Amino acid sequence: MGEKGLKLLAKARKETGLAVITELLSEQHAEMVAEYTDIIQIGARNSQNFQLLIAAAKTGKPVLLKRGLSMKIEEWLLAGEYVLSNENPSLMFCERGIRTFETYTRNTLDLSAVPIIKKESHCPIVVDPSQGAGRADLVKAMCKGAVAMGADALLIEVHPNPAEAWSDGTQQVSLEVFGQLMQELRPLILAAGRE
Amino acid sequence: MGEKGLKLLAKARKETGLAVITELLSEQHAEMVAEYTDIIQIGARNSQNFQLLIAAAKTGKPVLLKRGLSMKIEEWLLAGEYVLSNENPSLMFCERGIRTFETYTRNTLDLSAVPIIKKESHCPIVVDPSQGAGRADLVKAMCKGAVAMGADALLIEVHPNPAEAWSDGTQQVSLEVFGQLMQELRPLILAAGRE
Amino acid sequence: MGEKGLKLLAKARKETGLAVITELLSEQHAEMVAEYTDIIQIGARNSQNFQLLIAAAKTGKPVLLKRGLSMKIEEWLLAGEYVLSNENPSLMFCERGIRTFETYTRNTLDLSAVPIIKKESHCPIVVDPSQGAGRADLVKAMCKGAVAMGADALLIEVHPNPAEAWSDGTQQVSLEVFGQLMQELRPLILAAGRE
Amino acid sequence: MGEKGLKLLAKARKETGLAVITELLSEQHAEMVAEYTDIIQIGARNSQNFQLLIAAAKTGKPVLLKRGLSMKIEEWLLAGEYVLSNENPSLMFCERGIRTFETYTRNTLDLSAVPIIKKESHCPIVVDPSQGAGRADLVKAMCKGAVAMGADALLIEVHPNPAEAWSDGTQQVSLEVFGQLMQELRPLILAAGRE
Repeated sequence: MGEKGLKLLAKARKETGLAVITELLSEQHAEMVAEYTDIIQIGARNSQNFQLLIAAAKTGKPVLLKRGLSMKIEEWLLAGEYVLSNENPSLMFCERGIRTFETYTRNTLDLSAVPIIKKESHCPIVVDPSQGAGRADLVKAMCKGAVAMGADALLIEVHPNPAEAWSDGTQQVSLEVFGQLMQELRPLILAAGRE
Repeated sequence: MGEKGLKLLAKARKETGLAVITELLSEQHAEMVAEYTDIIQIGARNSQNFQLLIAAAKTGKPVLLKRGLSMKIEEWLLAGEYVLSNENPSLMFCERGIRTFETYTRNTLDLSAVPIIKKESHCPIVVDPSQGAGRADLVKAMCKGAVAMGADALLIEVHPNPAEAWSDGTQQVSLEVFGQLMQELRPLILAAGRE
Repeated sequence: MGEKGLKLLAKARKETGLAVITELLSEQHAEMVAEYTDIIQIGARNSQNFQLLIAAAKTGKPVLLKRGLSMKIEEWLLAGEYVLSNENPSLMFCERGIRTFETYTRNTLDLSAVPIIKKESHCPIVVDPSQGAGRADLVKAMCKGAVAMGADALLIEVHPNPAEAWSDGTQQVSLEVFGQLMQELRPLILAAGRE
Repeated sequence: MGEKGLKLLAKARKETGLAVITELLSEQHAEMVAEYTDIIQIGARNSQNFQLLIAAAKTGKPVLLKRGLSMKIEEWLLAGEYVLSNENPSLMFCERGIRTFETYTRNTLDLSAVPIIKKESHCPIVVDPSQGAGRADLVKAMCKGAVAMGADALLIEVHPNPAEAWSDGTQQVSLEVFGQLMQELRPLILAAGRE
C-alpha cells in the first residue's frame, strides 16, 4: 500500500475513531507505514522474513505476526523473538490456517494453536477465521470455537456487500452477520472468564 | 479384542449402567462384537476398509466412523455411505485429528470439520480431543472449542490414574479433571442451544 | 474382484504367459484370490488393515504392500512386519505417492523412499508412477528417476487405448509409449548395476 | 552475510576460478551482494517475499529461486514472474524439498517438480538434495534420480570434513564422496541426452 492509501486509512481512523492495522510489505516502508497505522501486520508469506520483522519491531508499533502456511508452532515462536529481542514487547500471534491436503476449506484453521501459544508465550493470540476457512459460512462457528478456547482477539473480514468486495469476497461476512455474531459470542466470552 | 475382553466390557456395562463402544478390527468378528457392544467403532486406519464398514453396518448397531489420518472430508462422507447404503441409518462421524507437519501435537484436530459435517450430512459429529492432540493438557480447551462449534458428542479418554494407564497415558485426563471439565462445559452447551 | 473376474485373469495368464497381480480387499477372499494370482496386492487404503495383511501373508503368496496415503516410512516398515512375522518372507514395498498440498499431481511420489527402504529392509522396493503422479505425461520421467535411484521394479498402468480405459485413463500410457520407455530405461538400468 | 563475508567469497572466487552463489536476505543489500556474486539465491523462507524478488531481479544478476516449504508449483511459477517481469530473464528454479509429515527425511524432495517445471517454464530447474533430504547418505541416490529425470543442475553441499562443518554437517558430503558421485553420474548424464 502506497502513501496515498495510508492517508486514506488515517482519514478513516479520524472520522470513525477506529484503530488501524495494515500489512508491512517492505523494510523500506517501515517508517512510513508506522506513521499512519496503530498496528503493523506481518503476513503469512513474510512470517520468516526476518529483516522485515526487525524493521517492524524497530518502529515501536505493536506487531501482529501471522503464522506461515506450513510453520511449526516452534518456528512461529522463534520468529516472534525477532520482534521481542528488538526491544518491542508488543507482539501478537495470529493463527490464520495452515496448508494441508483438505480442499473443502482454503486452509485448515489450527485452533489448537490457541491454548499452545497461551502456554508457551505471554503474548496475545488472535484468530483469523476468514483466511483460515476461506468461507463466509464457516466464520461464525470458527469464531465461537476460538473464543471458547481462549483466543484474545478475532480478525474478521467484514464488507457492507461481500458480493462486491474487491478481493476475497467469498470469505467476508456482511454487517448484519457481524452484528449477529457479536450477540452470539457474548455468552462464550463470559464463559471464557472475560468481561 | 477377543471374546474374553468383550465379556468383561459387558460385565462393566451391567454393573455401571454405562453404554459400551468398542472398535471392530475384522469383518469376521462383526457378529461377535455386535453381541456385546452398544456402538461399533471403526478406527482411523480402517476408515477406508470398505468391507469392514459393510460388515459393521449389517450388524444393525450404531457405527462411529473415525476420520482417516489424511482423509479429505469428501472421502469421509463417501466412506460413511458404505454404512448408510447398507440400511443402517445410525452413523456418527468422529473427528480425531489429521496428520500434518506440526510436531507440537500428535495430530492436528480439525475443528472446522464440525460445522462442515453438520452442513453436509444429517449424521452427528463427535470430537475426540484425546487422540486429536495427544496431550492431556490440551483436552479441556479442545472440548470447549468443539462444543462451542456445535459438536454433538465428545470422546474423552479418562483414567483414574493416567500415569499408570496401559496405553496412551499422556493423553488421558484424571477423573478430577473430567469432573471440572463437565462443569466448565455447561455454559458453552447452553450457548450452543443445547439443554 | 469376484471369482468370475479372477478366472478371466487366470485365462489371460495362461494365454499370454504373464504373471498376475491383483488386489485383496477382504480377509474372507484370501484363499480364493491366492488360488488365481501370482502376487497379492494390498492397497494404500488397506495398508494398516492388519487383519488383511495377516490373511494375505498366510496364503504363502508374495505380497506387494502399497504405502498408505500419509504413512510414515517407519509405519510402512512396521506394517510389513505383519507379513514377515507370519512366516511369509516374500514381501515387496510399493511407493505410490503420498498426500500433500500439491494439486499439480494427484499425489507426490516420494522417490526418497527407494534408497531408504533399501537401507532399512532387505525387501524389494517397487515404484508406481501412474498412481504417484496421476498423469500419463509424467510417467516416463518418474520411471527414469526410480530406476536411477535403485528401484527393483516398476508398476506401470498401460492400456491399448487410454482414452477408452474404464478407470484412471489419464494416468495410463499407450503400448507405444511403453515400448519407448523400455528402450529409454536400458542405459539407466545398466548404470544402476543391473543386467 | 555482511560485506566482509562477501569480500572473502570474492577472494575465493579469484583464487579458485569458481563462480559464486550466495543468498540475498534484505532488499537493502541487493546492490552490495550483486557486486560480489555471480548468482543471487532467494531462500525458501523468502520465496514469496515479492519485494526481495523485485530487488534481486533489478540487479540484472541471475536469480536462483528456491521453492517454499509448502509452495504449490503454480505459486512457484508465479513468484518467478516477479523476476521475469522485471526484465531479468536469467531465472532458475530450485527444488529443495517440501514439508510433509515424514520424519525420516528433513523434507520430502519432490522430484516430480523437475519434469513439471520443464513443461511449464523455459527456465532451468536445479535440484538441491542436501536440503531436500537433510541426510548425506541419501545425497547420491537423490542426485541420480534428479539427473535421470532431466534436472539442469545440482546444488550439493560439500565439506572437506563434514563432521566439523559450522552448520548442517549431517547433510554434507565429503570431497571423496563428491568425486565418486561425479563418476557415477556420468552414464546418467549421457542417458539424459546431455554432453
